Amino acid sequence: MNDHQSQRLLDALSEPSRAALLEGFRVRRLVQGEILGGPQEIRDSVFILRSGRIRVFLTFEDKEQTLTFLEPGDIYSTHSRAYLQAISECDVLVTETRTMLGKLAELPEAAPVVIRVLAQSLGNAMQIIEDLAFRDVEGRLARFLDGMLLRKGELVDARSWRLPLALNTEDIAQLLGTTRQTLSSLIARLTREGILERDGGGTFLIHRADLLRERSGWRYSSWRAQEKHALSAG
Amino acid sequence: MNDHQSQRLLDALSEPSRAALLEGFRVRRLVQGEILGGPQEIRDSVFILRSGRIRVFLTFEDKEQTLTFLEPGDIYSTHSRAYLQAISECDVLVTETRTMLGKLAELPEAAPVVIRVLAQSLGNAMQIIEDLAFRDVEGRLARFLDGMLLRKGELVDARSWRLPLALNTEDIAQLLGTTRQTLSSLIARLTREGILERDGGGTFLIHRADLLRERSGWRYSSWRAQEKHALSAG
Repeated sequence: MNDHQSQRLLDALSEPSRAALLEGFRVRRLVQGEILGGPQEIRDSVFILRSGRIRVFLTFEDKEQTLTFLEPGDIYSTHSRAYLQAISECDVLVTETRTMLGKLAELPEAAPVVIRVLAQSLGNAMQIIEDLAFRDVEGRLARFLDGMLLRKGELVDARSWRLPLALNTEDIAQLLGTTRQTLSSLIARLTREGILERDGGGTFLIHRADLLRERSGWRYSSWRAQEKHALSAG
Repeated sequence: MNDHQSQRLLDALSEPSRAALLEGFRVRRLVQGEILGGPQEIRDSVFILRSGRIRVFLTFEDKEQTLTFLEPGDIYSTHSRAYLQAISECDVLVTETRTMLGKLAELPEAAPVVIRVLAQSLGNAMQIIEDLAFRDVEGRLARFLDGMLLRKGELVDARSWRLPLALNTEDIAQLLGTTRQTLSSLIARLTREGILERDGGGTFLIHRADLLRERSGWRYSSWRAQEKHALSAG
């Protein structure tokens, strides 16, 4: 949900519907580092992030896997297997899930919004499963940048794209399940190969979007799968 | 969604609501091996499995990762990153996602049902991410059996549980992202250790549910995480 799609979805509601939906929500301020919810959370709440950023991650022993970074407008639940940590000071609107589901019964217009937000989260989770099950770190980075290019890329000239990301190297490493050191070496190698370069402040310049997509395995996997299952289904 | 929770959810709808929801659906019969949808699917449809079983999986080059096996009553979308393959002859009820979302506006009672089904799928996906990111195959099997025990286990005596699963060794191996051979050796080892044994026809006897839970890392990870984040948030 890094592309603020959920914000656009909420914005798509009519003003009276949005006001009615938000009626039962209360404001809560989180300090940097504060945990909003996680597997031990008893209360089953839904929240909307108004300002700041929240990291959503799974943890086990001393390992962590970041699922996503929430941005203003994003909707999420406190009641999942994931921990939610404010990585800056945040304002959130919170309500009980039960209250919100009750409200949806009175606001039929809002149900598809919530369903789309959940479907996006599910799509994101499937992408992480693909990464972990099938791709090495280079493949994951290529898949990540290729996806971000579609959403946030700005064409600079006939070949190059500007890709502004609100993520530092540490953030991206956590999303890809690797270390900052490994990611930095990988970016240095891709820079030497002329595929991309850093442009400071979380912005990338992508010179060979074609090679990036190739390395994400996107095309290959689609075609192979189609071929294979056409055969096995026959 | 192996526990038929979604079926119970659909059953929870009043008869007129369920009939109205299903009105736009058409019946489709799938032969064994047939692919219902996948990443190349253009049509964005929702379906309800009426009979048979469908495997939901991701694929990449020559690798596959099973996400779940759908059972009668389960609801799913054809329009995700996942392939859907009938592993037996199946009857499904299909409709366009757009049609169903439109219906939800007229059937406020049904929206929470669809939202819960999606939330379950998301919970399942997060569990797979945890497995892939954090657990070895033994940990995954222990986590899987521990979870199934909660849903389907029948207490046999003071210590042992009977666990009937509609899954063969191949199915479980696919769910855990391993091979049938590795899984068989692992089950043989756990049998020698007195933790569990096979009882034929997809049924397990679990003699040491405590050790199984311990090996899934469940308790340990919860406490460690709580402790760690109380510190890092302070």
